[in-house]
Formats: sequence, structure tokens, C-alpha cells
Amino acid sequence: MLQKDIIKQEDNFSEWYSSLLNISNFVHYSPIKGMVIYSPTAWQVWQNIQKEIDRRFATIGIVNIQLPLLIKQSEFNKEKQHIEGFKAELYTITHQGDEKLDEPLVLRPTSEIAFCNYFKQILQNYKQLPLKYNQWCSVYRCEKNTRPFLRTCEFFWQELHTLHASEQEAKQTASDIMNVYADLLKYFFCIPAIIGEKTENERFAGANITLTAEALMQDGQALQCATSHYLATNFSSIFGIKFQDKDNLYKTPLQTSAGISTRIIGAIILSHADNKGLVWPIGVAPCQIAIIVFNPKQETLVIESSDEIYKTLKNNYRVIIDTNNESIGGRIANYEVQGVPIVIVIGHNDAVNKKCTIIRRDNGNKSVVDISDIKSQVEKQLHDFNIAIYNKAFERTNNSIVECNNIDDAIKYINDKKMVIAPWGGNDQDEKQLKAKYGITPRCIKQEINNQQCFYTKKPASKLVYFARAY
Amino acid sequence: MLQKDIIKQEDNFSEWYSSLLNISNFVHYSPIKGMVIYSPTAWQVWQNIQKEIDRRFATIGIVNIQLPLLIKQSEFNKEKQHIEGFKAELYTITHQGDEKLDEPLVLRPTSEIAFCNYFKQILQNYKQLPLKYNQWCSVYRCEKNTRPFLRTCEFFWQELHTLHASEQEAKQTASDIMNVYADLLKYFFCIPAIIGEKTENERFAGANITLTAEALMQDGQALQCATSHYLATNFSSIFGIKFQDKDNLYKTPLQTSAGISTRIIGAIILSHADNKGLVWPIGVAPCQIAIIVFNPKQETLVIESSDEIYKTLKNNYRVIIDTNNESIGGRIANYEVQGVPIVIVIGHNDAVNKKCTIIRRDNGNKSVVDISDIKSQVEKQLHDFNIAIYNKAFERTNNSIVECNNIDDAIKYINDKKMVIAPWGGNDQDEKQLKAKYGITPRCIKQEINNQQCFYTKKPASKLVYFARAY
Repeated sequence: MLQKDIIKQEDNFSEWYSSLLNISNFVHYSPIKGMVIYSPTAWQVWQNIQKEIDRRFATIGIVNIQLPLLIKQSEFNKEKQHIEGFKAELYTITHQGDEKLDEPLVLRPTSEIAFCNYFKQILQNYKQLPLKYNQWCSVYRCEKNTRPFLRTCEFFWQELHTLHASEQEAKQTASDIMNVYADLLKYFFCIPAIIGEKTENERFAGANITLTAEALMQDGQALQCATSHYLATNFSSIFGIKFQDKDNLYKTPLQTSAGISTRIIGAIILSHADNKGLVWPIGVAPCQIAIIVFNPKQETLVIESSDEIYKTLKNNYRVIIDTNNESIGGRIANYEVQGVPIVIVIGHNDAVNKKCTIIRRDNGNKSVVDISDIKSQVEKQLHDFNIAIYNKAFERTNNSIVECNNIDDAIKYINDKKMVIAPWGGNDQDEKQLKAKYGITPRCIKQEINNQQCFYTKKPASKLVYFARAY
Repeated sequence: MLQKDIIKQEDNFSEWYSSLLNISNFVHYSPIKGMVIYSPTAWQVWQNIQKEIDRRFATIGIVNIQLPLLIKQSEFNKEKQHIEGFKAELYTITHQGDEKLDEPLVLRPTSEIAFCNYFKQILQNYKQLPLKYNQWCSVYRCEKNTRPFLRTCEFFWQELHTLHASEQEAKQTASDIMNVYADLLKYFFCIPAIIGEKTENERFAGANITLTAEALMQDGQALQCATSHYLATNFSSIFGIKFQDKDNLYKTPLQTSAGISTRIIGAIILSHADNKGLVWPIGVAPCQIAIIVFNPKQETLVIESSDEIYKTLKNNYRVIIDTNNESIGGRIANYEVQGVPIVIVIGHNDAVNKKCTIIRRDNGNKSVVDISDIKSQVEKQLHDFNIAIYNKAFERTNNSIVECNNIDDAIKYINDKKMVIAPWGGNDQDEKQLKAKYGITPRCIKQEINNQQCFYTKKPASKLVYFARAY
């Protein structure tokens, strides 16, 4: 299967996504329903993301720990909203070897419970606060309809859990972490995201506040890219987590949690990839630069020139040199499918003239540059590349957000791949009805308002809210 | 709990280990039996190990992938020896949410099955071979008697799986990978290891050959630090993995697997730690250098001098600067417990004289050095540190290996914390009996021999074998 076999976005967006993953060999299917195999490039993408998040987290004092996968069912049942939110999705272990367990164990769908048990063991006094612990792990949620990265029964993420002495500090942290994600989305993933608070029905099970980063994909559906939750004392009080304050009084700490998952890989693909293949932002790209050498006669000059380019770049970039003898066209197509941001082509004439050609993945632009100048040229092109793919996604998003004040218009716009901003005055039940009837969900709150009517319930509206269909 | 509360090795080695883990806050216990919580320092140790192994693997063309945790029970049952080896240890999932599964799923105790399913999907022809794929993951094996790092129901590891066109290449790879581990053990973990082949009963379930790196801990028990297996076509033939060779004929590839796990953290502690606390080799150490500033009067000169030291070192080392005002003794003791290789102390007189004191964790040696010379001094001391802890472990091991030719002597030596080399002519059943009766196991084969009598069965012996009690 080749580049030409990628189904066109405009023909069938969903099949475009599947065919692209298939033809790029980016992901494989396992015998277990809803669980995928990460190819070397897919896992490299995730490792690049991990490294960047770790780097950013380290600068604000977040450290990594590791907690067990398994949670006792009885522990999981302690927080009522939490179990309501997850009980249908839990994988349950009943046996160890041939022996039936006294009490079933569940695979973590998230680790609030495990973190609480740990915090209870280690927290003693206010001097330890704030505690900011992150975990990289896999989590498990049974899902009926699965798609690689977007919705899978096994996925990978980081989950950050923090404890604080005051409500104000905890709320501020939930917000600060969302700012870290917002910056990451913009500058690392090149994804323009809308940041806001979730409405009641869309909140994390057990949170008082859920902040979200929502991005609009190329098919007009929204995707939740990252979330940050203020959990108040919902978990800490149930699990009996206490600390002694300055006056030796025992207090219950305030808690937050936040995460970004392998879903973001789906978001990157649905934001940037096209009919030619994948498109990776430079920080994410498994291979940032491919040097295509066209040298059928095995001329020394061409070998030396291409080696010079490779050596100049290899310490600063993830670069490969491709010296196989297949056609230039086929090789370029392959790197287009793989989403390599920049391809450098060099052949006989180039080498003689001490030049090479840089081809950009995003717009196909070619520039002939001096080999002696390759380092600064590549630096500039990669820099421009990230800005260009961000700007393209930003314009698309910006052109796809429409204000409206009635359900008929909203449906019309949303069917036309748009996201709407509409006044909202509904409750939890209205949210559920809107979702069940039209497949539309509130993505996040834009702002508080007065004197407007809800676009759906016609009740008084207190908020302007983004609505869309969503992954 | 403080340094003085660490139980003495000579009083009770096992309790020394537990008290050390406890007092150093290195590891915590979870509500799930046999599964531990990795503290920030413990997880940092494991991340340092991962990084080093990834670095070494990358140089020999090994890439990382990621496979699902869950394996269908029916798939697992295909390879007879494999299921025999693991069936008593499997965690079994019977439910998703409230629904009973048609077929139970098991948590991977190792991923040969998952890799085979993947290889079958992707392998087409000889040009793809050899395939060398590594996975970092957690694995699950129910164990009755557990101890942090040494034997746990959940542990972390890398598992490398390779496919080859020829038996010779596969066997060579199993051996090459063991050489990578041997080098890592010596130079990164500073652990002297004995490399050899396992006897039949000690082989990996499903392997034709298992190579092992065995190290002798400070209590005279052996610990298997890494293994590399030649699997022949035992799995590939059952799972129908095929490739087309140059003549377009379909052939079954030869397979290897190899791994190193979080057990190695236990091995490092049991090799190097002492009654004062943990001792980390420099590559592994979460903190390599602690700068203790003694400055009760908050003098500018002391602040500036210590900052100068910190700034000189921070780009090349994991270094912390400790400016709290507690006693020097207590602070030094804390870093001894934590196993920090080098402590630098600086106070008023030092700053005036432009000097500071370097204290080595391994031998307590103090050297007063010029601050202007700190970079080269630290480099030298850290270099010497690793060599010193290796040499100490090497001498201990070397003095603890004894040749013998009868079971009574063997038991006497082994009870005296030794490992014995003895002629072996027993079979699988004899191995099991020796283990059941005396708790002694063959660790690995030293060499082939002729004309000797088995130290245990008195049958003709064909091999010299290392025997010991083992973790």
C-alpha cells in the first residue's frame, strides 16, 4: 500500500484517518479489542512528548513516581461520583493463578485512589506541601467503539496529582497546570486550543472544577486535548489524608489532578495531517530531516557532500540519510507519508554546484541552498515549519467558530463542520438530552453573561458556552 | 526514623534491607499485596537505568515499541512449556464492567505471545531481518513471598525480542546482548557478575538456551541480574511467523528475548549499600553531589562561594545545594542514608580560604580542595568512587567462590555465605531435589568437563557449575 492508497479527507474523513495509520505503518491492531500496538515511530512520538512534558514539569518542581496498576474494588467504591463515572468501564481481576481472590481487583482507569493511599502514608505536616507528584502509566477503560489514539481501552498518559494547604493555592495550581498545557499545545504541538471550564455534566468524576483545552479537528469535531481538575477535599477527606499545620492542628489538604494522554497523538494527526500523509510538528517528529541522496553512479563527490550535510545536522536533529537507489519520487512520497518536516535532496548537479534542495512537508516549497549554509537554512525552515502549521490550524479554527442563539442554527453550523458559541442556561439533564438527541456537547465555558436566553432550553442563560460534536 | 535506626547487616541482613528501604523513604507499600510504590528517588533510579540502556541499545539498532498489557488466555496456552512455567502466576480478568468476558484475559507475565502476534503481522521478507524490538513495561506474576525489587507481583523491565533468518545469527545475538548486559553491570552498576548458561531446570520457560548474569550479594546469596534467551523456533513456529527468503521460499525465523528488570535495583542495594545507608553508583544516583552549606550567620562570602561551586557543577551533574540551618552531622547522615556518592561541605573558614571539603560516601574519606579546582576534583572523585565500589564488590565475590566436590562441603561453604563451583551430572529431577532439600540451585554453567563425578548424584559429571542459594 502506497501514498496513492490514502483515502481522501474530503471523501471520507474517518476512513482517511484509518487508511493513513495503516499505510504509514504507524500503528497496528492487537488481538485484544480496542488495544493497539505502538510501532517504533508511534512510540518515538510518545517518548518525544514525554521528554518535553518532563522537562517542563521539572522546572516547576514536579517529580515522577510510580504506583501499582491494580486497585482494590472496595477502595475504588469509596468516592461515589468517581465510581459512578467509571464502573461500567472497569476491567476486573478475579483470579491469581488458579486461586479465586477474596476481593476483586480492578485495573486503574485513573489513579486518584492509588495516589490518595500513598499521600495518606507520606503526608505529615505543612512543610511537605505543596506536593506535586506525576506518574507516567497506562490506564484501562472498556470502550465499545474504539479508534487508535482517539478512544482505546488501553491508553498511556501522565497524571499529575497535587496536594495543597489552601483552596486558593490548589485552584491556582489547577489553572497554572492548564497554562503549561496551553503553552505546550501552541508551541510544541502547534495546535490552537480553546481553554475554559467544563460544564457540570462534562466534569471529571470527582472534580469540583475541570479545566479543559479543546481543539477543533479538520472535520469540525472538537477534541479534548488536556484537562486539569480541582478536586477540593472530595478524595482527601474520604481517604483520611491529613496534615498538621503551623499550629499543630490537623487539616485536610486540597487536591488537584491533571493529565495529557496518547489521545494527543490523534489530535496532532487530525489537526495537521493531509491527503499525502502524516505531518509532525518538529519537536514530535520521530525523524525531523531526511537526506535523500540520488547517486546511481556512486560518485565520490555526491557521497562526500551528502555526508557533510549529515554530519553538520546529526548532533542537533533527528536526521536520517537515505542512500538507497530507488526513484526520488517514491522516496519523497515515503517521507511525506511519514510526516518528516523537511527533506533534503542531493544529486550529481547539486554536489557539483555545492548546493542541495530543501523540501518542506507542509507546503511542498522547494528551496535550493548552499551546502555551506545548510545549518542555518535548516534551522530557519524548521522554525518556519512549526509556525506555518500552527497558523494554518489557527485560521481554520478561527473561521470555524460561529456565534448563534438557537438550536436549529446550531445544528446547521455544526453539520457544516463548525463549532458554535451559544448562551447556555441548561442543567445536567439538559446537557444529557442535547447529547442524546443531537450528538452535541458543551466543550467549555467561554464567559459568564447576563440577560440572554439559552439557545436550547430558552431558560435564562448565565454563560456563553462552546458547543460541538466531539471525539 | 534516622540513620541510627538502620538494623545492622551483621545482626540480620534481611531486616537491614527492609529497615534501609524504610528509613531512606526509598519505597512504600501499596494496599495490593506484593506491589510497591516507587518514591521520587526510586523512580529516578529506574529512569536513569532506562536512559542508559536505551542509549546502549540505540547504538546496536534496537528500537522501542509498545504492546498491550492484556493477552488472551487461549493465546497464552499455545506454547506448552511457556504456560507450564507461568500458569500458577497469572492474574486473570473475567469481567469488563458488569459484563462477563467470552474468554478470560491475562496480565502479561512476559510478552513473547504479544510480540509473536505483532511479528506475524509485520514480517514479510528477509530484508526486514534481523528485527530488534524492545519494550519497556510492567509485568505481572503472582508471588507468595515478596520483597521490594527482589520479588514483587508487579515489576518493571525491558524485554528485547529479536527475529533472525539463521540459527547462528540468533544465537550470536543472544550472546551479544548478554555482553551488553555484562558491560552495563560492570561499568554502570559496578556489579561483578558471572556470565554463563543456565542448566535445564533454570531455563526460561520456552527457551533452548538461557544465558544469565549472576552476582553474589553481601549475604552470600546469588541474584540473577539479567538474562538472554535463544528461543529457536519454539514460539515462531506455533504462531505461524514466516518470511520469504531470497529464493522466495517461506521460512520460520529464529527468535531471542532478553531482559533486565527493577530487580537490578535490589541487586545494587544488596551489593553496595551498608549500615550507614544506600550507596548508588554514579550513573544510577538520583543525586550525585550534595553541597552542604554551613552558614548560620548568612555571610555573603559563604553564599557566593557555595553558589560558585553549584554553578560550576550543575550542568554536568545531578547536584543539589542544601542551605538549611540544621547540624552538619545530621545533614551528612541524611545524604549517607540516601546514598549520594559525594558530599561537598563549605562553611566560613572554607570560604575565607577559597576551599571546600569533599566527602566520599563509600569510604568516608575527606579531602580539602581549592574551590577553583572543584570541577576536576569532583570528576576524579566520582570516577574513583565507581572503581572503588566495583573493586570492593569484586574482591568480596572473588573471596566467596570455592571449588568443591561433595554435597556436605558445599552446604558448609554455602552456609558460610559462599558460592561453590562443583562438577554436575544431574538431570532436571536432581536439580529440583537439590533445591527442595537444601535450597541450593545451579546458577550457571562454568565449563564443560570430563572424567569427574557429580558432587551430588555421584553420576559422571559433564559440567562445572556454580551453585548457591539465590534470591
